[in-house]
Amino acid sequence: MDEVTFAVLGTGGIGRRALEVSQHKDSLTPVAACDRHGTAIDFDGLDVDELLAATEGNIDNEVASDGGSAAAVDSEGGVKQHGEDRGVVASEQARASDDPIQDVIDHGDGIDAVLLALPNYEHDFIPRVADRFLEGGYAGVLIDVLKRSRVIDMLDERGDEFEDAGITFICGAGATPGLLTGAAALAAQSFVEVTDVDIWWGVGLKSGYEDNRGTVREDVAHLPEYDIETARDLSDAEIESIIDEHDGVIEFEDMEHADDVLLERAGVCDAEDVTVGGILDVRSDEKPTTTTVRVTGQTFDGETATNTFQLGDETSMEANVNGPALGYLKAGVRRNRAGEYGVFGPAELMPGF
Amino acid sequence: MDEVTFAVLGTGGIGRRALEVSQHKDSLTPVAACDRHGTAIDFDGLDVDELLAATEGNIDNEVASDGGSAAAVDSEGGVKQHGEDRGVVASEQARASDDPIQDVIDHGDGIDAVLLALPNYEHDFIPRVADRFLEGGYAGVLIDVLKRSRVIDMLDERGDEFEDAGITFICGAGATPGLLTGAAALAAQSFVEVTDVDIWWGVGLKSGYEDNRGTVREDVAHLPEYDIETARDLSDAEIESIIDEHDGVIEFEDMEHADDVLLERAGVCDAEDVTVGGILDVRSDEKPTTTTVRVTGQTFDGETATNTFQLGDETSMEANVNGPALGYLKAGVRRNRAGEYGVFGPAELMPGF
Repeated sequence: MDEVTFAVLGTGGIGRRALEVSQHKDSLTPVAACDRHGTAIDFDGLDVDELLAATEGNIDNEVASDGGSAAAVDSEGGVKQHGEDRGVVASEQARASDDPIQDVIDHGDGIDAVLLALPNYEHDFIPRVADRFLEGGYAGVLIDVLKRSRVIDMLDERGDEFEDAGITFICGAGATPGLLTGAAALAAQSFVEVTDVDIWWGVGLKSGYEDNRGTVREDVAHLPEYDIETARDLSDAEIESIIDEHDGVIEFEDMEHADDVLLERAGVCDAEDVTVGGILDVRSDEKPTTTTVRVTGQTFDGETATNTFQLGDETSMEANVNGPALGYLKAGVRRNRAGEYGVFGPAELMPGF
Repeated sequence: MDEVTFAVLGTGGIGRRALEVSQHKDSLTPVAACDRHGTAIDFDGLDVDELLAATEGNIDNEVASDGGSAAAVDSEGGVKQHGEDRGVVASEQARASDDPIQDVIDHGDGIDAVLLALPNYEHDFIPRVADRFLEGGYAGVLIDVLKRSRVIDMLDERGDEFEDAGITFICGAGATPGLLTGAAALAAQSFVEVTDVDIWWGVGLKSGYEDNRGTVREDVAHLPEYDIETARDLSDAEIESIIDEHDGVIEFEDMEHADDVLLERAGVCDAEDVTVGGILDVRSDEKPTTTTVRVTGQTFDGETATNTFQLGDETSMEANVNGPALGYLKAGVRRNRAGEYGVFGPAELMPGF
């Protein structure tokens, strides 16, 4: 495949690990990275090692509540500072900016794909970021790792605009939704009717906790006592208190994960037949349970069976989110270069390697 | 997805079961079916029940050794007759024909995809069938379930011609290669380097033996003592004698299966890192072993792990070949309608449901 240039919006756990994984991919060149504070752009390819080292400990875990400007809600102790340089601006490759997203849009001609590695604390945040790219005349691939089912509809509402603009939007391109959704769509192939899709994940996040506070916060939002709004307003101390209450191990059942609508959209099954749950352990690097996808259905010759996809326990959450994110990014660029625009999900695409 | 019309070349086990599975797929309409004896065409959609019932026991297991004409090598007892009508011609929907492939090509405008469900007893048979479609000016999707690695190169040699002709050729679109190759490509996503792909299949073929003599013969060709040419020349009695020698259970190691070149082509791993083996039991309907794909690799964060995909034991070979064959057919039509021509494999496409 020809060279693919990409930008990362957001320098939290996902953005950083995506940049790191991309170092192993010959055909992928990161040319831009930004967060609320500034933008790094280099069309010869960013020096990922320098950027990651410079921003170590400068992880932007701030809760972004505004779609476009640099103003954001500060969460207690969320952003550490190295001198005056916050977030990505600690890197020598970056410059402070009032509108980093606009910087990326302005350089859009040289950017094949943009990974929206931003936490979604308001349901329409990512869709509104997409609106900025539409308004800015960007043509290319937008890719996100959104988890919430309800956001897919918002993206579909923009489907015609994406098509007119020459934008291919790959949604739900992480682990779940993402890799595990794709596994379900593939496992469905033995059947003429799928009656049940069960997606069960395990994450050990001890070492990765600092890097992934945003992801943990999003998970807390899935607990019965919380939702997106209330989880967003919790302080870091409150989040840690909830974790303590669970002795560091939180089990999730029946999560609102977009795997359901994405599988329904692909015609595999009804959204209500899809169950997503799992266990998060922030006190161990070992997975508390094995990530498993089980697809049950009926074959054309009348048998009922279950096909199973399991991830090795040593594959970390970061590997299982960012490998696929870049894989779906490549697949998205293939679609876009072939002139296919609009919204696509992981049940419809085979990620590239 | 809009309606897809398709034709099936070959009325052996694969062609018949593909027609049967298609009855469960609303968007797929079979409009033509042919074998060496004749052609059935109905653009309102074939009556699959009538066709299958009429040709029951008329299964064309003859070894086709010629790319285009009706002349073929008769194998002992391969074709049963109901009166004068052999093969598909036993169906009231069919007419005898001297050149059934040409009949399909002549009606090509109304046919979105052609499933080449023909056994490949000469390495270049399927490629030569593809040549006939190229010469006939067909534009659309050709799809085969070829297993042998060496044939992929022959198809690639025709890549430019396919692109000029508007043909999208989906190769290796069955179980292995096919579904299991796709599973390997997806499982690879956790890794930055894949070191080993192990594809292990189990087939219980007691009831399905009569319908699938062609497939069994192809399997015998994989035994160390045989190859494609010598297996082709065996009589049915000789095939059954080989099966008896193995007490009905034959184990295969290190088979030449196109999963290897298809995964290499997709950039997942080197062909030599892929191993395909399995166990065929023609005396039982139960699988002698569980079909399992194991992909081992290294993650970006330095871990070695194995991801696993398993098919439920109750999923038959027919379900696992024909469900995916139609799924890859749909995916191929999507590619073709988007203007993407050339050769694609199961490591590059997500099959539709």
